[in-house]
Amino acid sequence: MSHGVRLCFANPGTTELPLVEALDAVPGMRGVLCLFEGVASAAADGYARMSGRPAMTLLHLGPGLANAIANLHNARRARSPLLNVIGDHARWHRAADPPLASDLMSLARPVSGWLRAATEPNRIGRDTADAIAAARAGCVATLVAPQDVQLGAASGGPEKPSTARAVRPQPKEARVEQAARRLRTDEPCALFLGGSGLGSRGLAAAGRIADATGCRILCDTFPARLERGRGWPAVERLPYFPEQAMQCLAVFRAIVFAGTVPPVSFFGYPGVPSQLTDPQTDSIRLAEPADDVCAALEQLADAIGSGRADHAARPPPSAARASGNRLTPENVAAVVADLQPEGAIVMDEGLTAGLPYFEAAQSAPSHTYLALTGGAIGQGLPCATGAAIACPERPVIAFQADGSALYTLQALWTQARENLNVTNLILANRGYRILELELARTGVVPGPQARALTRFDPVPNWAQLARGFGVPGVRVVDVDSLAREFAHANREPGPHLIEVMVS
Amino acid sequence: MSHGVRLCFANPGTTELPLVEALDAVPGMRGVLCLFEGVASAAADGYARMSGRPAMTLLHLGPGLANAIANLHNARRARSPLLNVIGDHARWHRAADPPLASDLMSLARPVSGWLRAATEPNRIGRDTADAIAAARAGCVATLVAPQDVQLGAASGGPEKPSTARAVRPQPKEARVEQAARRLRTDEPCALFLGGSGLGSRGLAAAGRIADATGCRILCDTFPARLERGRGWPAVERLPYFPEQAMQCLAVFRAIVFAGTVPPVSFFGYPGVPSQLTDPQTDSIRLAEPADDVCAALEQLADAIGSGRADHAARPPPSAARASGNRLTPENVAAVVADLQPEGAIVMDEGLTAGLPYFEAAQSAPSHTYLALTGGAIGQGLPCATGAAIACPERPVIAFQADGSALYTLQALWTQARENLNVTNLILANRGYRILELELARTGVVPGPQARALTRFDPVPNWAQLARGFGVPGVRVVDVDSLAREFAHANREPGPHLIEVMVS
Repeated sequence: MSHGVRLCFANPGTTELPLVEALDAVPGMRGVLCLFEGVASAAADGYARMSGRPAMTLLHLGPGLANAIANLHNARRARSPLLNVIGDHARWHRAADPPLASDLMSLARPVSGWLRAATEPNRIGRDTADAIAAARAGCVATLVAPQDVQLGAASGGPEKPSTARAVRPQPKEARVEQAARRLRTDEPCALFLGGSGLGSRGLAAAGRIADATGCRILCDTFPARLERGRGWPAVERLPYFPEQAMQCLAVFRAIVFAGTVPPVSFFGYPGVPSQLTDPQTDSIRLAEPADDVCAALEQLADAIGSGRADHAARPPPSAARASGNRLTPENVAAVVADLQPEGAIVMDEGLTAGLPYFEAAQSAPSHTYLALTGGAIGQGLPCATGAAIACPERPVIAFQADGSALYTLQALWTQARENLNVTNLILANRGYRILELELARTGVVPGPQARALTRFDPVPNWAQLARGFGVPGVRVVDVDSLAREFAHANREPGPHLIEVMVS
Repeated sequence: MSHGVRLCFANPGTTELPLVEALDAVPGMRGVLCLFEGVASAAADGYARMSGRPAMTLLHLGPGLANAIANLHNARRARSPLLNVIGDHARWHRAADPPLASDLMSLARPVSGWLRAATEPNRIGRDTADAIAAARAGCVATLVAPQDVQLGAASGGPEKPSTARAVRPQPKEARVEQAARRLRTDEPCALFLGGSGLGSRGLAAAGRIADATGCRILCDTFPARLERGRGWPAVERLPYFPEQAMQCLAVFRAIVFAGTVPPVSFFGYPGVPSQLTDPQTDSIRLAEPADDVCAALEQLADAIGSGRADHAARPPPSAARASGNRLTPENVAAVVADLQPEGAIVMDEGLTAGLPYFEAAQSAPSHTYLALTGGAIGQGLPCATGAAIACPERPVIAFQADGSALYTLQALWTQARENLNVTNLILANRGYRILELELARTGVVPGPQARALTRFDPVPNWAQLARGFGVPGVRVVDVDSLAREFAHANREPGPHLIEVMVS
């Protein structure tokens, strides 16, 4: 009945108890308790990004689903496979409009690539199989299970999904040839990657292409997953603000997109277009996100053939070094990139205080980089938690802005309970720095109320919050102690939190 | 432009900055920063319950709204007036499907009694006035304001709502007479109250009716607001589990409902009906929740006339006393009821560990009682926060289960920042005790996975969590220290947290 789904991130209630009881009946299935549903959904996302397999969430009615939605939104933008299961009131009880009733389907629709409410006890096995099949194609598949349907379900064997597994569309030959032709010219070109194009197989092909043509390799500002560091081809990330992003893209005569779509501005600013690609630049859509992106890149690499470009792609950056003992964002980035262990998974929700890290980490040991994909803050700590459950043998670093971390700090408890090797670096700039930047962009001098809404006063004490959840926590105020504590946390098993007082 | 709305519980983002800037331009308007949207929505609810006026929330796009939904659901069930404002992407930018875009209206609909997306900059003043007018009728009024509409809006003076203010329907004479006739008989009868029927004016009338007829006064298991304690007529609350609730109601030959509807089971259990009122009992609907409930009760009291009933209503309970030094739920209830200061506001999300408190507090000094109305846990701490902002001169007690408190613990920071007189009593039974009870009800012995999903191991340390947010926190393990710390917290200004290790 599990169809390869082995993990259930759960925050259940009364209407899910038949499913809770069933956890003990499914061999190989494991429930992981989360103290808030937003932790469960991001943990399932992190697990999916690292394992490639869907995890299951178990949520309680409309409010439980609602609490999970922000991070389901991020999972949707990451195209993560996720089986999202919600218990509902027994159908015969809904007409009474009990206190916890609400329009679940209306809440679920915006985040669900696949959505169904189970109606027949003897079809719930099939419903689950269909949901898992849909999730595997790269979406949040939401199954609403009324309590009476759960109770009536026979605990039978596995069911086959009602439709055959979807096959990823193969590359179009004409697109491959068009892309090869353009990349072989002397014009400045870029390969713009997303999805599996940023995995090991996709990057191997992309590296061959860049080596042969001298094209640069770019990715979205917030990739779901990217292999990088020493030994990997350098992938540049698109700048966040639209003016810089447009400037970055305008130098190219052609951009080949594989596994993603042409980038758009994160927000709409008056006088700035939504589409960031220069109208003069040719956009070649080699492979859509749902296509077989790796096959497309490999065919493109084969079509181009080997040979070194005279005009080499960007030289690899030299290792960043901290300068002085102040915890500037640059120094923090340099220390972390320098000391992060080989093979780490880095969940980056560092936002403004974490900006210099991406550049610095290009020269770090080989690692996997996960970003906040949908802009719904509060993904980092729980997504790192799920990644650590998927890869218990790898060190995980949550590189995390403080304002965002406050959304889902309950994730620390699950890290303690599961004894996960997560080092949580809280970049504490004690405010919503992004809002201060955006206010400055508007050119208006903010009044006292507007200013007050961007600052954390009193300053939360993260070391204490961590200890409250059973995670050892320390606060560091200079580069030397950051280096010492970070090295210590990486050496010692189990979760740690370091509050980095960024200045 | 504020239409009497003075408070804005905000967790804004880039798309709300024009509204953030406007806070400094509206005289008398105050922004209160919350570190999570679920705190903002419950604080607005608490403010509304205590002030009778709507507060405004300011939320960021779909994910910000989603984080607020669970407590908006509670506000909807409380019929609290609430102006729920959400910034959206500029309309011209939406077609680009930027990362933070989602179907906002689909998310907002289930919790909104009134819902509109602003489309014209020169109509946004009118839109706001309409939303406030709708909210004042007792609902969550959601206004979605795209960023370009905000930016184009002239900062003009106040606008009138487009429709005249709704008048609450007056009592139907026939119903008043029917109710009076039944209550005057010798049959066992009850007055079942909700909404303003549980306020001072409604209770005064209900007290006259009970004095004259000997009827008992009941309320829903989870009333939005109830005046009680010494000097108030005793109002019994309907038991939570349906079997006990049905037993409680079955003794009445007639029940007169005012300000609420006949009660239904919280969940649907096989073999137990949704409707809890015995089919043999006459249900007389004196006043619907939207009616003028107080006027109906006063007309009923007048129709019945004065005179003491021979068969008196229940005698007032004697004050509960702690027995021994163990922190049983009964002892905790007795200490709190005994020591709570005169005129306190008690937000009760104590759930299983808090169950005996309601009974015990009938003999406590006069106080206002607020309950978790919609079953979406995580209402207590932030609702108490909003209540304290509405009534700075009154002591506020958050009587709070630990599992639920973990949902929105960020409320503690707003209490510290605003220096609110809230005493947070965390009833720590270190698990989801309600799920253990419900599992026991099913008669199935839960397996190890099911059991693990109901227990908090490691045990969160609430004293440390509180200090992490700037609130003095202590843990108590016996009745004597609870009494000492509770008295101390009530004496000393500002917020406090006491972790009560319930055994």
